[in-house]
Amino acid sequence: MPLESNVDIRPATGKLGILLPGMGAVGTTFIAGCLAIRKGLSSPIGSLTQMGTIRLGPRTDDNAPLINDYVPLAQLDDLAFGGWDVFEDDAYVAASRAGVLDGHMLEQLGDELRAIKPMPAVFEQAYVKRLHGDHVKSGASKWDLAQQLVDDIHRFSEENGCDRLVAVWCGSTEVYREPSAVHQSVEAFEQGLRDSAPEIAPSQIYAYALLSQGIPVANGAPNLNLDTPAMLELARAGRVPVTGKDFKTGQTLMKTILAPGFKARMLGVEGWYSTNILGNRDGEVLDDPESFKAKEVSKLGVLDTIFQPETYPDLYGDIHHVVRINYYPPRGDNKEGWDNIDIFGWLGYKMQIKVDFLCRDSILAAPLVLDLALFLDLAQRAGLHGVQEWLSFYWKSPQPAQPGLYPEHDIFIQLMKLKNTLRHLMGDDPITHLGAEYYD
Amino acid sequence: MPLESNVDIRPATGKLGILLPGMGAVGTTFIAGCLAIRKGLSSPIGSLTQMGTIRLGPRTDDNAPLINDYVPLAQLDDLAFGGWDVFEDDAYVAASRAGVLDGHMLEQLGDELRAIKPMPAVFEQAYVKRLHGDHVKSGASKWDLAQQLVDDIHRFSEENGCDRLVAVWCGSTEVYREPSAVHQSVEAFEQGLRDSAPEIAPSQIYAYALLSQGIPVANGAPNLNLDTPAMLELARAGRVPVTGKDFKTGQTLMKTILAPGFKARMLGVEGWYSTNILGNRDGEVLDDPESFKAKEVSKLGVLDTIFQPETYPDLYGDIHHVVRINYYPPRGDNKEGWDNIDIFGWLGYKMQIKVDFLCRDSILAAPLVLDLALFLDLAQRAGLHGVQEWLSFYWKSPQPAQPGLYPEHDIFIQLMKLKNTLRHLMGDDPITHLGAEYYD
Amino acid sequence: MPLESNVDIRPATGKLGILLPGMGAVGTTFIAGCLAIRKGLSSPIGSLTQMGTIRLGPRTDDNAPLINDYVPLAQLDDLAFGGWDVFEDDAYVAASRAGVLDGHMLEQLGDELRAIKPMPAVFEQAYVKRLHGDHVKSGASKWDLAQQLVDDIHRFSEENGCDRLVAVWCGSTEVYREPSAVHQSVEAFEQGLRDSAPEIAPSQIYAYALLSQGIPVANGAPNLNLDTPAMLELARAGRVPVTGKDFKTGQTLMKTILAPGFKARMLGVEGWYSTNILGNRDGEVLDDPESFKAKEVSKLGVLDTIFQPETYPDLYGDIHHVVRINYYPPRGDNKEGWDNIDIFGWLGYKMQIKVDFLCRDSILAAPLVLDLALFLDLAQRAGLHGVQEWLSFYWKSPQPAQPGLYPEHDIFIQLMKLKNTLRHLMGDDPITHLGAEYYD
Amino acid sequence: MPLESNVDIRPATGKLGILLPGMGAVGTTFIAGCLAIRKGLSSPIGSLTQMGTIRLGPRTDDNAPLINDYVPLAQLDDLAFGGWDVFEDDAYVAASRAGVLDGHMLEQLGDELRAIKPMPAVFEQAYVKRLHGDHVKSGASKWDLAQQLVDDIHRFSEENGCDRLVAVWCGSTEVYREPSAVHQSVEAFEQGLRDSAPEIAPSQIYAYALLSQGIPVANGAPNLNLDTPAMLELARAGRVPVTGKDFKTGQTLMKTILAPGFKARMLGVEGWYSTNILGNRDGEVLDDPESFKAKEVSKLGVLDTIFQPETYPDLYGDIHHVVRINYYPPRGDNKEGWDNIDIFGWLGYKMQIKVDFLCRDSILAAPLVLDLALFLDLAQRAGLHGVQEWLSFYWKSPQPAQPGLYPEHDIFIQLMKLKNTLRHLMGDDPITHLGAEYYD
Repeated sequence: MPLESNVDIRPATGKLGILLPGMGAVGTTFIAGCLAIRKGLSSPIGSLTQMGTIRLGPRTDDNAPLINDYVPLAQLDDLAFGGWDVFEDDAYVAASRAGVLDGHMLEQLGDELRAIKPMPAVFEQAYVKRLHGDHVKSGASKWDLAQQLVDDIHRFSEENGCDRLVAVWCGSTEVYREPSAVHQSVEAFEQGLRDSAPEIAPSQIYAYALLSQGIPVANGAPNLNLDTPAMLELARAGRVPVTGKDFKTGQTLMKTILAPGFKARMLGVEGWYSTNILGNRDGEVLDDPESFKAKEVSKLGVLDTIFQPETYPDLYGDIHHVVRINYYPPRGDNKEGWDNIDIFGWLGYKMQIKVDFLCRDSILAAPLVLDLALFLDLAQRAGLHGVQEWLSFYWKSPQPAQPGLYPEHDIFIQLMKLKNTLRHLMGDDPITHLGAEYYD
Repeated sequence: MPLESNVDIRPATGKLGILLPGMGAVGTTFIAGCLAIRKGLSSPIGSLTQMGTIRLGPRTDDNAPLINDYVPLAQLDDLAFGGWDVFEDDAYVAASRAGVLDGHMLEQLGDELRAIKPMPAVFEQAYVKRLHGDHVKSGASKWDLAQQLVDDIHRFSEENGCDRLVAVWCGSTEVYREPSAVHQSVEAFEQGLRDSAPEIAPSQIYAYALLSQGIPVANGAPNLNLDTPAMLELARAGRVPVTGKDFKTGQTLMKTILAPGFKARMLGVEGWYSTNILGNRDGEVLDDPESFKAKEVSKLGVLDTIFQPETYPDLYGDIHHVVRINYYPPRGDNKEGWDNIDIFGWLGYKMQIKVDFLCRDSILAAPLVLDLALFLDLAQRAGLHGVQEWLSFYWKSPQPAQPGLYPEHDIFIQLMKLKNTLRHLMGDDPITHLGAEYYD
Repeated sequence: MPLESNVDIRPATGKLGILLPGMGAVGTTFIAGCLAIRKGLSSPIGSLTQMGTIRLGPRTDDNAPLINDYVPLAQLDDLAFGGWDVFEDDAYVAASRAGVLDGHMLEQLGDELRAIKPMPAVFEQAYVKRLHGDHVKSGASKWDLAQQLVDDIHRFSEENGCDRLVAVWCGSTEVYREPSAVHQSVEAFEQGLRDSAPEIAPSQIYAYALLSQGIPVANGAPNLNLDTPAMLELARAGRVPVTGKDFKTGQTLMKTILAPGFKARMLGVEGWYSTNILGNRDGEVLDDPESFKAKEVSKLGVLDTIFQPETYPDLYGDIHHVVRINYYPPRGDNKEGWDNIDIFGWLGYKMQIKVDFLCRDSILAAPLVLDLALFLDLAQRAGLHGVQEWLSFYWKSPQPAQPGLYPEHDIFIQLMKLKNTLRHLMGDDPITHLGAEYYD
Repeated sequence: MPLESNVDIRPATGKLGILLPGMGAVGTTFIAGCLAIRKGLSSPIGSLTQMGTIRLGPRTDDNAPLINDYVPLAQLDDLAFGGWDVFEDDAYVAASRAGVLDGHMLEQLGDELRAIKPMPAVFEQAYVKRLHGDHVKSGASKWDLAQQLVDDIHRFSEENGCDRLVAVWCGSTEVYREPSAVHQSVEAFEQGLRDSAPEIAPSQIYAYALLSQGIPVANGAPNLNLDTPAMLELARAGRVPVTGKDFKTGQTLMKTILAPGFKARMLGVEGWYSTNILGNRDGEVLDDPESFKAKEVSKLGVLDTIFQPETYPDLYGDIHHVVRINYYPPRGDNKEGWDNIDIFGWLGYKMQIKVDFLCRDSILAAPLVLDLALFLDLAQRAGLHGVQEWLSFYWKSPQPAQPGLYPEHDIFIQLMKLKNTLRHLMGDDPITHLGAEYYD
């Protein structure tokens, strides 16, 4: 069923609960930020749903409402926050430990943050080797753990008086694994849960529990999760929208900005060397080669689809693309990415570009959590389900709408797709930037 | 008259003469490159007309022909090259002096390059203070100089058996001047020529001579030229297409790639500090504060239109934008641009990006000269005239289609506009990246 | 009279008053830091007198006492702080405005800082064009202003029970001026004061007042001050030690580290391009071309004396050395210096080095103020007077011991000179790093 | 026996043969360079023996002869070149393949370079895993291989009419190995050779063969070689000077320049992250983890000895020092090193420095080969033997004069040690930079 235009969208009345598996640096920065913005202490910089506008009609119409005024989104005042974590710290303690937000701001939000306590997590050491927490569930089987999560979900919903729920995975990167037999159908997966199959990762147990309750899910990490036949079948059956994977922040964000630029100008690329240094929990987890593998696969794919080496073999057919991540404690949450790019132009002459990005991981990720939660909720109210390709904008490894399609990595095409989808939902014409009407 | 779809385009038969006012580093790199490519010695990297493809229909059609196969462009074998310069060096000597291309390549093109000798230039010291050449015309008045150019044009056309001509200004940056009374109409301008009005710059005399003969013109420098009522009137009267201004290469190219990326993600910008070091003739000319003024105005405008500070005052309302150019001989033609960008995200937290671009000025500019010449010729054969806004892609300071419109600086919107214009001319549907048909 | 070895040094008993003309970012960072260190809240990082050791005898002796234990310096607990400023803010308010130290630390020092109030300054707009304060003295003549300063000095000394005083100029950079007739002798200078000669800068009035009272002076700014015959005569007459000029911090510090390294290896230098961006009061003052001129002269001299182009014409005879400073508010006190260095090696092959220093102006300068105050006081107690060449270590433009000598800029030679001077004063052998005794 | 002053140095008459085990990029750049300089085609930039001066007496004497005029060194015209390699390419072909020097220069030296053909190498795959050459010796035992080398040495000496020989290892980095029992004495080593002990690396067979013939040796690679009791015993017995190890070029060179600078100013260091990208044969060899281990140990030691963390625990007690090397073909021989350094100053405030060094490996190493050969020959003629600590200046991992001593890494102390040693040998006073005589 193709996407219809001018669909009927249920209104965003009542409370929207946002569930976060993983309440560390990213999760608490997101929650504390929403609270601070609600209090008028700060601004939702970096959030397209809160700050962005959308142009309608020709330039001369000068008609560009806020996205938040154009499509019916849940409002910040109507959000409730919850989740799970392997540490029992409440959101105030966890945010203080993460060291992202300054103490002065956190203190103003102290009571509200302290009231947000994580539920015990589903965790398995083999999937995240460098993390050691003890606020974890025990159960007779993985099926039993899934049921405990379902109970958590319902209890949270009732206690917070939620009308609707969405979930965004904000936990650590699990080790790299290929899909196996248990991931091929809902039936096989449920049997695997009952057998406590080792191929089933904790993040997949969350996804199963959430989707089985009709709750839309976004996957902020690079490991295998929503991108298996079992989960897609579950989403389709329940008409639930899903989206993933791996928040596009930092170096990969820069890549999907720069690479389309080089390609626009038909400048060749001979090599792209990327090194990252970061000192937060994420850096520690990625210091394990197996977790890094999952991240590396996610990061390396970007250039291939943007550059289309098969279409442009002379320009992009032989790129030496190297990605390194190093755990480096002095940097803390302030990730630094240094890129060296070797390009060539007219007659093959060589040029170099160096980009040093002194960024902050959680600051870049938090507004994405907000946007994804609000857009997934919109999608569900608009009757959309399955993979939401128009949300590719947010991902390092966007899932395509259909298995056969290549994913779109170019951030500018992703944004155009997102905005034209909103226009389409609201019954407006897409923007083509043709501007044919201005010529005399 | 708005741009019609599926127009009748005259075929590109016969020879196309490309006239370059200014045959220094950029001009000779362009000419030598075309000759080398014709001989199969090298590739037209960086040229959209030669290397680019254009997607037609949905992704699943897998239909993306070369632009050069899709629209009827003049072919490299059908080009003839000529121009004017203040130094009498032939193209071989000038290219050797410029030091852009290596000696080995130039030697293989020696005979052809030596045969290309510049015609004496129209020059006025007051407009380019740091340049001292003696291969210049003298005349009773600026009107007389214009007539000498017209004679040059006709002689060149006959000697080279050209069917059609186009011109691309590749000369130095003239000093900054506001438009004055003589620029307000063709009549005033022609009187100014007869009076040798000091307000009329040499580049304007070229533009007048070329347009009066129905020859399309592109302006590669930032100074006042095609963007005056007089020139636009002349273009309209003769139904001649024009485009400008200031080749978008190096640092500004990077800015129009990066800035749309920050804006896509609604990341705020507090400051953007750009410094350039370059050691070629261009660097020497720009060491004069008045020439730099023209360049600075051209460079500073970019961020304002991309960021729309009036729409996004919290994000872009107070940017400290500083641009510096320094003459630094060790760098030669290998311009280096270093940018520091201060951005801020979620809750106002600050981040920094440093970009060091070790680029080559003429290598980046040469393929633009080729594309502009071929696209202007296509435009003329397609009956387009006046400002060709769809060529904004190539300019630091794109001229809008109509005086009231804001120029488009975002390189990705510029490219979409360019490609959708080509699709439109050929009667195909524009691409919107909606992809509505893929959802199930 | 050459420097004698093992001299008799008066003990550092009683209180040492440190007078600062200029109590802005640098001055208050220095004072607040000393108070914080006294309270045990922090460490005197960056201070050679507090952190440094000095090796005595061969390596095998393993004898390297703290400098502070080796030579008799005044101790932090015995310091009293005072000074003058054109703004009447007390040290707490001034430090808060400067924005260098975090609020939490300042609050712990609140009472002590608030008790330190600047005395009204001697100021003249023509010498610092971008600064506008009203906490200034008025007087019948410059002579009268000097007498007011003398009164201030005595009152401060009595109120604080000081045994000894030293002064360190921490004010803004004055405009560039060549020495004139009034600077040629004490007599001419005193006549100039009485005539309110426009050639006499405010900083010179301070220097005169201080030296006339036998108080050692260090000049932290690049403008003409202690380096005139009049001031040197005054210092000699009163047997007062002096030292200057221009604190070596940030980019020039890096230059005097890197340049000796290139020279050690006989690597040639073709160009050195330095750009600075800074957003504090200093940046604003230097945005005035005349103040920048004083700073530029100070900064440009460094490479010449390190590289000895007359000795090494093939390596350093033709360096393109460019220094730029830009006022860029987003950076605040966190100055950033970006250097591009073009070097060449074996057979003339070219290489490049880029250095980006994200530094903090006042953090780098404050420990120099402390060291200079303590070492000048030591020098006076040791009977040293005139220019203290062994303190060259601290200066962008070190004054040589005698007019005919070239200044020493190499930071490693400067440090060896400083330490060997201390060893000499204490009667120990200098270190030569010969290590002849270790060979078998 | 300590180093005596004003020793009797045998004159440098006759021919000096320079033997290079390893004739790849570094070796051929060295040889081609010497030939080019002899012909007057280029300059020995980067060579202290050829370009450097040495100051004698106080500054006011203005007496700083060229080192080459001050001490009796062999002259370039008296050098003969030879060596061994695993590829049979002559020096012209090898230099062309290395791609360091431009073709135009190489052609002018063609005949001389083609006449220099490597002798077959002693090689063992287990010690250099990524290198595959077939120009290698075979023999009944390692003892037999050593004897073949001795024969090579004598044949080379006779054929070239050499009076004296020196050797500089310019081969690849072997895998990391700790010294074992066979390395503890000459007797054990010789038995090991006869037993073809696997613990004996090819480079050690060269060292044995050379030292046994009284030929001074320098070790340009980081692996275990001259730094074993067996080799030191052999050197002592034959009164042969030796020096090592690992040419100090590129990133480590920069470290030993910068680190002493931070320490001079007592600035703390929290972290130092170094990444290297290089695309030559060296990069390929180091892509093997075991070879990288040898290099890493050599690179990591530098900071520890310069910073003396046990003396300065508050400043340097907890440095996160990370070194990465990546094989990245686009860079070729043009190695690039990017360093991020996290420092802290007054009160612990943090600052950052980024250094990007676009260097050329072989261009930096070649002049060191020349200097080491000439200085080792001088040392031998001066009767010096054993470890030449005064040549620490050239090494990433300098061997100390005696086992108990710490090595000196500070390049400025190393240079002072080198120059004061030369002064000492010639009977002049060392320089202390005290300058006591200039004070009045």
